Amino acid sequence: MTSDAMRTQVLAANRRFYDALEALDMAAMEACWDTGSAAACLHPGSDWQRGWDEVRAGWEAIMAATGYIEFEIRAPRADVVDPVAWVTCIERITTSGPQGPSVVEVAATNVFVLDATGWHLTVHHASPVIRPAPAALPE
Amino acid sequence: MTSDAMRTQVLAANRRFYDALEALDMAAMEACWDTGSAAACLHPGSDWQRGWDEVRAGWEAIMAATGYIEFEIRAPRADVVDPVAWVTCIERITTSGPQGPSVVEVAATNVFVLDATGWHLTVHHASPVIRPAPAALPE
Repeated sequence: MTSDAMRTQVLAANRRFYDALEALDMAAMEACWDTGSAAACLHPGSDWQRGWDEVRAGWEAIMAATGYIEFEIRAPRADVVDPVAWVTCIERITTSGPQGPSVVEVAATNVFVLDATGWHLTVHHASPVIRPAPAALPE
Repeated sequence: MTSDAMRTQVLAANRRFYDALEALDMAAMEACWDTGSAAACLHPGSDWQRGWDEVRAGWEAIMAATGYIEFEIRAPRADVVDPVAWVTCIERITTSGPQGPSVVEVAATNVFVLDATGWHLTVHHASPVIRPAPAALPE
């Protein structure tokens, strides 16, 4: 398989991960992951969760606390050194709350390993992107 | 080489990266990195820098602005899928300023690729760890 074809596969696996989270579908989320002890996940501002049991509990808590969530993935870049690949990107996350929709940006690194059944996520590191304050507040 | 031996090598490469930053030694920093277009770096709160030219400019700016800096690496974990490895860890960073020393914690993912001359960093993703406020301020 060419590197371009592998990058296409990896970007598809990366999108499936965000689709699972948008759908609040824990079975689809689990299918995206390496469910062994190597799994590691860090949510914005938090400490590392390590091993699938901790990582799964984190996603369950997020899904239980989330109503609507949508991910637009900006500037994704996939690099492949077979059988490992990693995607760096910016997640533009839209959520809805009592004040209406809000958008935040999160930087992410997602490391995937290829096994007999496809590319599986082994590291997800997500962190806040901090923008300069606007010069003036909207009226 | 056994996986344990590789993990030991990768943790040593990870420490050399922090040693280069502590020493404010740009030549040592450059020796730690894959200096091609695949290099990617994200400093806490910032957006992605991609390609060695952007990454190098970022380190040069940080080194120019830094006096004393020290890294204690907490809970480093290395996973190896030859020829790729990644370290997840918490950086306890001590800096000195006019108010005296201060300590912050930063979560990091460091992805390394093994080439003919050793393990080289290809992704560094660093992000703030946000701790709950203390129940009371010190007197």
